[in-house]
Amino acid sequence: MPHIAVPDGIPGIRSLFATRPAVAQALSLLADTLLHAPNTLSRGERELIAAYVSSLNTCTFCHRSHAAIASCHLGDEGTTVDAVVGDPERAPVSNKMKALLGIAARVQRGGQFVQDEHIARARREGATDNEIHDAVLIAAAFCMFNRYVDGLRAWTPDDLDGYRLRARHVAEHGYTAPASPVPTT
Amino acid sequence: MPHIAVPDGIPGIRSLFATRPAVAQALSLLADTLLHAPNTLSRGERELIAAYVSSLNTCTFCHRSHAAIASCHLGDEGTTVDAVVGDPERAPVSNKMKALLGIAARVQRGGQFVQDEHIARARREGATDNEIHDAVLIAAAFCMFNRYVDGLRAWTPDDLDGYRLRARHVAEHGYTAPASPVPTT
Repeated sequence: MPHIAVPDGIPGIRSLFATRPAVAQALSLLADTLLHAPNTLSRGERELIAAYVSSLNTCTFCHRSHAAIASCHLGDEGTTVDAVVGDPERAPVSNKMKALLGIAARVQRGGQFVQDEHIARARREGATDNEIHDAVLIAAAFCMFNRYVDGLRAWTPDDLDGYRLRARHVAEHGYTAPASPVPTT
Repeated sequence: MPHIAVPDGIPGIRSLFATRPAVAQALSLLADTLLHAPNTLSRGERELIAAYVSSLNTCTFCHRSHAAIASCHLGDEGTTVDAVVGDPERAPVSNKMKALLGIAARVQRGGQFVQDEHIARARREGATDNEIHDAVLIAAAFCMFNRYVDGLRAWTPDDLDGYRLRARHVAEHGYTAPASPVPTT
């Protein structure tokens, strides 16, 4: 049961958003800027970072949500995100993405854990300054989103179909579009 | 030296913002919504949470910045924020704030560390759902801001006068106003 009163039947972060529209606007804009806006990292790659960090933070709601969105963008059934969550170094992603996921894992522990050698590896694999910036900030942002959802104990449904429905809506329309008319999972 | 190229002479998070205006807009809106917009928690109280969490994350730039802003709002010379950082339970703040700072410390470790007993204590001390929500989200947000600044190794000046100048501008105008014409520290 959530730690604060929220509307019934709305899963996860959106139940919290329903209580604070100004917060919903700011956080939705941030998510859209980082994960959906045009970028040299694909939407699928950015969602992989989001899902990976959420798994490191053991935030089940965000892990399931962003794994489903990543799978929509990547056009697979979750095999890539599952491999990344299991071990990024052995996952079927580019060497650049392996380096960026390594940076994301450091950020999850704390900003000071990112050292010159991790940045140098990403550059060697072709990452630009913008891509390094975005990998760090996406990882940092999910250290916020994960704590927000779990710190208020927002509802985490177990029905995976709900995440998939929502994922298709977000993958198509982004994070600032009005919620879909489908069931709000 | 920062991990990515940023303009010279701009401290901390604003040097990163200079490279990504869309990110700057989203994060400034979030900071303003959480820390400066009208709220039943005073601006000083909310900045205390920000400074406290930044100290727990050992983010020197954010700790110094938000300690200086808290002191502006509280009209002291940093005595309250120093006491909170030292030990919230012995600091000269309300019992409600002690409970909310206790929640913030749990969020800093991870969302799952917030348990019913911590929420119950805050309620006993008079905290509303909105105040509990905001304490959790401010703490979570600084787990992002701190990692963003340190994960990209943004410049952390040692001259404390610069933080005080900037703090007066933010305390008066909030986080979405154009930067002050004073030196950009």
